[in-house]
Amino acid sequence: MKLSRLLRLQAIFYDKYEKRLADSIKHMVGSKPFNLNLYKLSLKHASISEESINGLKISNERLEYLGDAILGSVVAEFLFLKFPFRDEGFLTETRSRMVNREALNQIAIKIGLSKVIEKEYKGKNLNAHKSIFGDTLEALVGAVYLDRGYAFCKKFILKRIIIHFDVDDIINTTANFKSKIIEWSQKENKEIDFKMVAVSGNQRFKEFLVELCVDGNPLSEGKGSTKKKAEQEAAKNACEKLNIAI
Amino acid sequence: MKLSRLLRLQAIFYDKYEKRLADSIKHMVGSKPFNLNLYKLSLKHASISEESINGLKISNERLEYLGDAILGSVVAEFLFLKFPFRDEGFLTETRSRMVNREALNQIAIKIGLSKVIEKEYKGKNLNAHKSIFGDTLEALVGAVYLDRGYAFCKKFILKRIIIHFDVDDIINTTANFKSKIIEWSQKENKEIDFKMVAVSGNQRFKEFLVELCVDGNPLSEGKGSTKKKAEQEAAKNACEKLNIAI
Repeated sequence: MKLSRLLRLQAIFYDKYEKRLADSIKHMVGSKPFNLNLYKLSLKHASISEESINGLKISNERLEYLGDAILGSVVAEFLFLKFPFRDEGFLTETRSRMVNREALNQIAIKIGLSKVIEKEYKGKNLNAHKSIFGDTLEALVGAVYLDRGYAFCKKFILKRIIIHFDVDDIINTTANFKSKIIEWSQKENKEIDFKMVAVSGNQRFKEFLVELCVDGNPLSEGKGSTKKKAEQEAAKNACEKLNIAI
Repeated sequence: MKLSRLLRLQAIFYDKYEKRLADSIKHMVGSKPFNLNLYKLSLKHASISEESINGLKISNERLEYLGDAILGSVVAEFLFLKFPFRDEGFLTETRSRMVNREALNQIAIKIGLSKVIEKEYKGKNLNAHKSIFGDTLEALVGAVYLDRGYAFCKKFILKRIIIHFDVDDIINTTANFKSKIIEWSQKENKEIDFKMVAVSGNQRFKEFLVELCVDGNPLSEGKGSTKKKAEQEAAKNACEKLNIAI
């Protein structure tokens, strides 16, 4: 038996709040927590939490940083195995669409984490904190990883997070930035133009640098191993700058 | 015994090249490979490799994508545990300095991977491919992960990659972008100015947006939860735009 499992004995001393939290965790993660304190911490969003110890503010930001990395690597492997014939550009792009804030917010609602957060901050207005659900989901992943190790955490991510993604839908909307920006230009009656700025590298390994101009003024740049990829990248950066929903 | 271990029996049929490669892997990774083909693939850099199967180019780019993610999460945890009292901004910044291309190039040279690559591409000029060593190191991490699993790969990264980092040195140069850009402005006789553009959020959770102007013209922007962080971010982006070595 792993030593950390002994932490479960603490459950005898759980108060009412802790009992409810442990049940919620079991519901979301699939197993009761070993170290409940990690999960308590994962719920303390920096924007709302008021607690501090010795002047240090208690927040889940460090757990979020760790969870983000673990989530990233599990999703990376998932896509690597799912799409054996797609190149790394596709995999990178799809991954970034899966782990973006809005997608994670949605997942947090689907697995019920949003309810736990709302109970935690009863009476407070959470609408001002758009990303609180997604941030907390990442922190929860960090807590699960520290509590149970990589193999368990990977299973949790695959069976309880990734399962909620409609990967085909994500792929279909992937790499559509160029058409989004063209659509925008028609609506706004602007003229857009992709300019090739530079090509570097040798015959086999080229890098293209493309500039996107709106009414003649440079707005964004993009790099890529093909002209098309560089244009996509430039269009993506432009969408971000113009706050165009993708 | 794990089934994948049976792959080691293939070693009986290794030719001279394969024997040498397996020895090199053992030297770098600390254990003979189970599935040598993964490691062979990890050496095929897209810019140099000429092989293809059914029109699909054989390259290590997919392994590099996977290795990058695994390396990122192991380094994230390493820093998380090493610095229990530092915030996530510091951890993120330090991590990105550890896994950047130049740092990985240096590590690849230190662990002898550069020699293996040079032997693999004997007679070819590798100088044109600046990042080949670092890219291949990431691909090697991907191969080790697929071949041996997370626990082994983590040990490999901690004992044979991270050990080569002078983390204190990295930290001392971290977050020094502002002084770099000021230094540059004095040398180039330019006037630089940090302008606060916007502050959003509520009383407890603010976000500052700072613009860095050179001779009155906006060059870069930075966001952060404090004015100082936003200025650092803006200075960092400016350093990148101006190609200032950090």
